[in-house]
Amino acid sequence: MKIIHADQAVSIKRSVDNGTEVQRQTVKVIIETVRAEGDQALINYTEKFDGIALQNLKVSEEEIAEAYRLLDENMLSIIKEAANNIRSYHEKQLKNSWMTTEENGTILGQKITPLDSVGLYVPGGKAAYPSSVLMNVIPAQVAGVKRIVITSPPDQKTGKLPPAVLAAAQIAGAAEIYKVGGAQAIAALAYGTETIKQVDKITGPGNIFVALAKREVFGDVAIDMIAGPSEIAILADESAIPVEVAADLLSQAEHDEMASSVLVTSSQSLAEAVQAEVHRQLSTLPKYEIASQSVENYGAIYVTETIDQAVEKINQLAPEHLEILTENPMELLGSIRHAGAIFIGRYSPEPVGDYFAGPNHVLPTNGTARFSSPLSVDEFQKKSSILFYSEKALKQNGEKIAAFARQEGLEAHARSIETRLR
Amino acid sequence: MKIIHADQAVSIKRSVDNGTEVQRQTVKVIIETVRAEGDQALINYTEKFDGIALQNLKVSEEEIAEAYRLLDENMLSIIKEAANNIRSYHEKQLKNSWMTTEENGTILGQKITPLDSVGLYVPGGKAAYPSSVLMNVIPAQVAGVKRIVITSPPDQKTGKLPPAVLAAAQIAGAAEIYKVGGAQAIAALAYGTETIKQVDKITGPGNIFVALAKREVFGDVAIDMIAGPSEIAILADESAIPVEVAADLLSQAEHDEMASSVLVTSSQSLAEAVQAEVHRQLSTLPKYEIASQSVENYGAIYVTETIDQAVEKINQLAPEHLEILTENPMELLGSIRHAGAIFIGRYSPEPVGDYFAGPNHVLPTNGTARFSSPLSVDEFQKKSSILFYSEKALKQNGEKIAAFARQEGLEAHARSIETRLR
Repeated sequence: MKIIHADQAVSIKRSVDNGTEVQRQTVKVIIETVRAEGDQALINYTEKFDGIALQNLKVSEEEIAEAYRLLDENMLSIIKEAANNIRSYHEKQLKNSWMTTEENGTILGQKITPLDSVGLYVPGGKAAYPSSVLMNVIPAQVAGVKRIVITSPPDQKTGKLPPAVLAAAQIAGAAEIYKVGGAQAIAALAYGTETIKQVDKITGPGNIFVALAKREVFGDVAIDMIAGPSEIAILADESAIPVEVAADLLSQAEHDEMASSVLVTSSQSLAEAVQAEVHRQLSTLPKYEIASQSVENYGAIYVTETIDQAVEKINQLAPEHLEILTENPMELLGSIRHAGAIFIGRYSPEPVGDYFAGPNHVLPTNGTARFSSPLSVDEFQKKSSILFYSEKALKQNGEKIAAFARQEGLEAHARSIETRLR
Repeated sequence: MKIIHADQAVSIKRSVDNGTEVQRQTVKVIIETVRAEGDQALINYTEKFDGIALQNLKVSEEEIAEAYRLLDENMLSIIKEAANNIRSYHEKQLKNSWMTTEENGTILGQKITPLDSVGLYVPGGKAAYPSSVLMNVIPAQVAGVKRIVITSPPDQKTGKLPPAVLAAAQIAGAAEIYKVGGAQAIAALAYGTETIKQVDKITGPGNIFVALAKREVFGDVAIDMIAGPSEIAILADESAIPVEVAADLLSQAEHDEMASSVLVTSSQSLAEAVQAEVHRQLSTLPKYEIASQSVENYGAIYVTETIDQAVEKINQLAPEHLEILTENPMELLGSIRHAGAIFIGRYSPEPVGDYFAGPNHVLPTNGTARFSSPLSVDEFQKKSSILFYSEKALKQNGEKIAAFARQEGLEAHARSIETRLR
């Protein structure tokens, strides 16, 4: 892990993967085929890409019940407690419709309505992530979404989904689950097939084909931000404990070779101690290969002269996860402009937020915290403006509105007002 | 304007214009050229597409002052009153950062921060739309955005921007304005040039090249929804006044040949009276050509058996603008699930919202009100999650969190927790 001084221009920025032209074309063909052939296309692509010929796309109640039985009691109770924490946090995000009234009779306001339906993509592959199920399903439920659909690619051997994923879906309360992955799943969610009715919004992470498909259907349905590899930045002074800082950096590095772990500190001695500690702890990790590549290519320790410079560096990075490990971390909270989630003090390491505490773990990556937010209840609701003018209000303002319309060259707009003024 | 009965399957849905392959390639080349050549590319493209060779891209203070002088007093005072109304409505959308505390020391919350910078695209062409300037700039200001940039293509003859647009920018308080349009403007806002520093989010409508460029830069910067042609749906019973209903339908139709005006009513007699009235009023409109094409191709009167069926039809359409012209319009408000803005009762015709009342006129089109909202202060702020665990909270929950991490195969996550528990 390299140490970089504030005045050195070294970039560890990862480029966004927009896919090759071949990948883009492949995704377009998949989407068009699913639109034309429906379920049969889903079954064909699942055989081709996931290596299994399915009879039924929909997960049965028996499969869910079996998955639930397979998980041990302790794990079930932890998932349930996590689900409760996540629900409780997201309930605090709920907003009310509102209205204001004026004496002339005007009523203006905003009506908040849940989306009718959403689709959650759960990636397959090496690991099963029940936490992703909770983090996507629960905010949608709290928002009041009636129909919540999950899709995920089936296992090549069993043709089933991972028990932990199904159990988490059961605990969260989502029952409409399909065994289909990749761009074909996104196409089905966006445009519908005989079995899978279309949804209004698609959320959840996925590989490059899933990301390209989401970009392609964007506009016909809503999508969440396109997720990049995970990252952490730690803002620390000399009071931080090197063993802990190193452990936290590595907890991001083990996710992905493309993950990025960065320490920004005003302390040269902390920088050196963390550097040594990272290499010591690395060697004992089961995911040594992944974590060491991540640390080598996208890890860095920035040393600044002052803590203010360190804060400015953090704002430039706009990290997905930020830990503040300074003597008085709350003092710095106000100066942090850009970060997906902010973990304050030594007893709040990042994994606290990944599973359990309650805030969402779906966060903006790769600098997009400059303009994006964590997944929340807001993303599963939408607003309608409310306008009510009384006769008195229209008489007071109608001529001004008609004049404004004519200024923009819109005569029929002016007449729509004036018809009521006569 | 055709009358369609509830049981007839007649679609007037407009397809979304995703551009031709040639247009997509053109936009890609423009973006790459602007990234490579900066200001010079902007000057070259402006000469090529807008037909004018500019010396300076930035609008000078003198140009703004001159524009302000050119506008008549009455119009200035109407624009100022509209700006005040828009500001007052959007200030009510502001949300506070919040935190919750638990007895074990846990603090969870959400910190709200404005974006650093946004760019507003104002289209050129036949008409000048000062209202668009107000509707985009003011919510960003209310959100607390420090740097607000406007770009718009210059006039071919004068090399200037329309006085009404500059005056509106002056009234709203935006001073960083550039004379550049099209895909090249979007590229400059997204990636920066010598003169135009990059922004974090781009909003505002534009032609197909602007829309394709926004789709292309999406992810590197945030964008608002890609706007389609305007539309209105009117929900009416036999109490509605045909002259007014027809005037309101035509006020949408005059916008664009692709605009859509729809009446949904449970009254056959209203349907017939409005049909006749539309054709009578059409003939006297200055924008007769545009409006009549719009009415012909994308206008319709749906007749249903009951008012409940009419409401369901409205929810299927998910219109950008909805007027409720029934005897007791407030009774139906709760049953409207999907609409960008809802205009209630006969004294609230749609143009009231286009300029003056306060709610935003940037609204979701083409059925996207199913999942999108009016432009608001929310779109110019973002959230960061806040997590603080005390030592006690981590000791209570640490082992559960570590177990969850191991269930997902993430050993370094578990160790990051356990380092603190020893």
